[in-house]
Amino acid sequence: MTSGTQIATTPPRGMRDLLPNEVALRDWATSVIIGAYQRFGFTRIETPAMENINLLRRGEGGENLQLIYEVLKRGEKLEKVLASQPVDRDELSDLGLRFDLTVPLVRYYSNNLAHLPTPLKAIQIGSVWRAESPQQGRFRQFTQCDIDVIGVKGETCEMELIQATADAILGLGFNDFEVRINDRRVLSAIAEHCGFASERYSAVYIALDKIDKIQIAGVKKELEKDGHDSAAIAKLASLCEEFQKATGDELSLMEQRVSSVPSDVVSALRNVIETVHELSGGKYSIRFDPTLVRGMGYYTGQIFEIAAKGYGYSVGGGGRYDKMVGKLLGREVPACGFSIGFERIIGVLADKGITPGHNFEKIALIYEPARDPAPAVLKAAAKLRSENQAVSILPRKKDMTKQIDTLKSEGFSGFCAFRGADAPLEIKTI
Amino acid sequence: MTSGTQIATTPPRGMRDLLPNEVALRDWATSVIIGAYQRFGFTRIETPAMENINLLRRGEGGENLQLIYEVLKRGEKLEKVLASQPVDRDELSDLGLRFDLTVPLVRYYSNNLAHLPTPLKAIQIGSVWRAESPQQGRFRQFTQCDIDVIGVKGETCEMELIQATADAILGLGFNDFEVRINDRRVLSAIAEHCGFASERYSAVYIALDKIDKIQIAGVKKELEKDGHDSAAIAKLASLCEEFQKATGDELSLMEQRVSSVPSDVVSALRNVIETVHELSGGKYSIRFDPTLVRGMGYYTGQIFEIAAKGYGYSVGGGGRYDKMVGKLLGREVPACGFSIGFERIIGVLADKGITPGHNFEKIALIYEPARDPAPAVLKAAAKLRSENQAVSILPRKKDMTKQIDTLKSEGFSGFCAFRGADAPLEIKTI
Repeated sequence: MTSGTQIATTPPRGMRDLLPNEVALRDWATSVIIGAYQRFGFTRIETPAMENINLLRRGEGGENLQLIYEVLKRGEKLEKVLASQPVDRDELSDLGLRFDLTVPLVRYYSNNLAHLPTPLKAIQIGSVWRAESPQQGRFRQFTQCDIDVIGVKGETCEMELIQATADAILGLGFNDFEVRINDRRVLSAIAEHCGFASERYSAVYIALDKIDKIQIAGVKKELEKDGHDSAAIAKLASLCEEFQKATGDELSLMEQRVSSVPSDVVSALRNVIETVHELSGGKYSIRFDPTLVRGMGYYTGQIFEIAAKGYGYSVGGGGRYDKMVGKLLGREVPACGFSIGFERIIGVLADKGITPGHNFEKIALIYEPARDPAPAVLKAAAKLRSENQAVSILPRKKDMTKQIDTLKSEGFSGFCAFRGADAPLEIKTI
Repeated sequence: MTSGTQIATTPPRGMRDLLPNEVALRDWATSVIIGAYQRFGFTRIETPAMENINLLRRGEGGENLQLIYEVLKRGEKLEKVLASQPVDRDELSDLGLRFDLTVPLVRYYSNNLAHLPTPLKAIQIGSVWRAESPQQGRFRQFTQCDIDVIGVKGETCEMELIQATADAILGLGFNDFEVRINDRRVLSAIAEHCGFASERYSAVYIALDKIDKIQIAGVKKELEKDGHDSAAIAKLASLCEEFQKATGDELSLMEQRVSSVPSDVVSALRNVIETVHELSGGKYSIRFDPTLVRGMGYYTGQIFEIAAKGYGYSVGGGGRYDKMVGKLLGREVPACGFSIGFERIIGVLADKGITPGHNFEKIALIYEPARDPAPAVLKAAAKLRSENQAVSILPRKKDMTKQIDTLKSEGFSGFCAFRGADAPLEIKTI
């Protein structure tokens, strides 16, 4: 007990307290998104916030592995680690906080296979934690919002994942967005076609991934600095320029230019683009983008991203990862997922000044604590509650005009001043 | 990358994966509880899962302080701690996972005062973590579900907290429960009346708290073993016996026997009991229980608990804690809260075989992957979705009869076999 010490009342660095209006907006967005997913037959599942540290360190997390919050061992196990000289840093923790929802999903699927629907169409909405350098709009605890289909091969999955995610985003009031789609096998065909060294493809992808931010010239510069073959760089740059100028069928252009792309990869992309386009009803667009990379190394097939127009970043992304379950389960199971960038979506909604419609009327029953007997106030509230949806008992403040204004900003639609057990209860709209 | 190593697919010890039906039950219970709270004017707030370790270690957590999951420092800060000899165990962590929602609430209130409604009527539903020995029905990550009023003196709070919590529990289908109520000042008056040493009251409360489990004889034995004054023990035991025999007005009995209980404490208890009784409409009962203790040391006034009949444990509890905000904020602010034992409630609902009513119809559109073109299947699903609430596309399995049975258990109400782009879509009820 050190109550004399000054204790900070701020949350930990990079983490947030959410005010009532912020939670209301998030709850509304969550219910819209879940509603859209459920209409496509997805069901919610949940995993714990912590996982065994060995699972998290396995390497499917890419650069997130550097950002894991590790949980200290406890009791004798910790004593034992501390007793050895020098202390083995990696032995200090046995658990870690999850940094995404995909690694836990794959473990969950492997662990619960016998009790799960096949295919599993899972919704996951939950917090993840990454010890990143805090910066504007980036938090160390944030919500991810994923749907995944585990157990189905072929592009039916991709189509429904895109459609369900687009429906969710439409439901949130976005009406001007674009789905971009590519395939990891297109990327490797491009890298091969240009003549990059085969063991350095992933470095090429990492540079190409930045094209939206640093343009073709920037990608060239980065690849040159990195010492890639200059003829390959020139070939890639001219290919990118051709794609940027293309206004129509980029997929056919790619077929013409990069003949090594397997034809089934192209026809699957065309199939998804045409079907999604038709089902979109013109409310959003979908386009092939041969420069789309997506960061994670575990993707094996189609990859996609959603960009909200007017915002320089994606609000969702995903793809097929057919090898990941197999690494844990011991036999391959196809899988594909799409994640909504929940925090970005909430940021855009807040920027737009969108507040959720209150789904119920809320009335304040204002009483004078020094005068009004509590039982009578409670009974009046119960009576009002039987006729109205929500009633909050609140003590009267000195400046009642100001109090009413504040109530309005808090979402109250009316108030009633308590005037005695037998007085009528009059609700005034605010 | 250690993909060759065998990795456990189980969740961390004492933590759980939740299957779709389990999440559905929890989501339904959550929405019922939040709905009840909102009808009383409470609003949701959220704090991060982690808090600064100094805040958690401050001592308001009672025995939970031994159960904190501590989070390892990162980067240079950790290097620095490990470089010193011997390693200072307490310096290894800078953060910890919250072990309850009350300590974070008090910090949240102090931090966000200027932006919060006054009084604050907060709903918190979220995970907490305690490194307890795993045992049947006790988990290391579990959900707490609290309402608190911060900023109101007097028993209006207690009444509405009890009423709102009781409404939530009624909404979940419990119709046979009892609210037990006491006051910390009653407990100290009893300890004083019996003649216990004033510096050892809390040890007396801890023994008394076990009366439901070990009966009066057990409490006596524990107090004797602990070396308390034997005359005081005898006086307490005979008082407890008298209360157990009393069938009517225990509060008046207490007034007669323990004259040192302040009269305003008694009248406040009477006021709450009578008002709640009247507002209950006979759906649940409330009774004064002078042996009710509640574990946490921070309570200052009335304390309460809800017991579901037929289950040997409480399904909720709370009380007034007027000093806790002051310790952090520097000025006293009255506060009172009531917490529902969410995991116990879910356990009882699962025992009873209660499954949430599906709030929407779910249809399966079954297709033959090798035969049916994906675009046509997707379009058929979109058509069905325009006429039904939820439609899931699922590949046909070899044994379709078994598949339909499984779908039924998963909450599907019908299915439709895809028979070609132009064939009619017939839904069969299952």
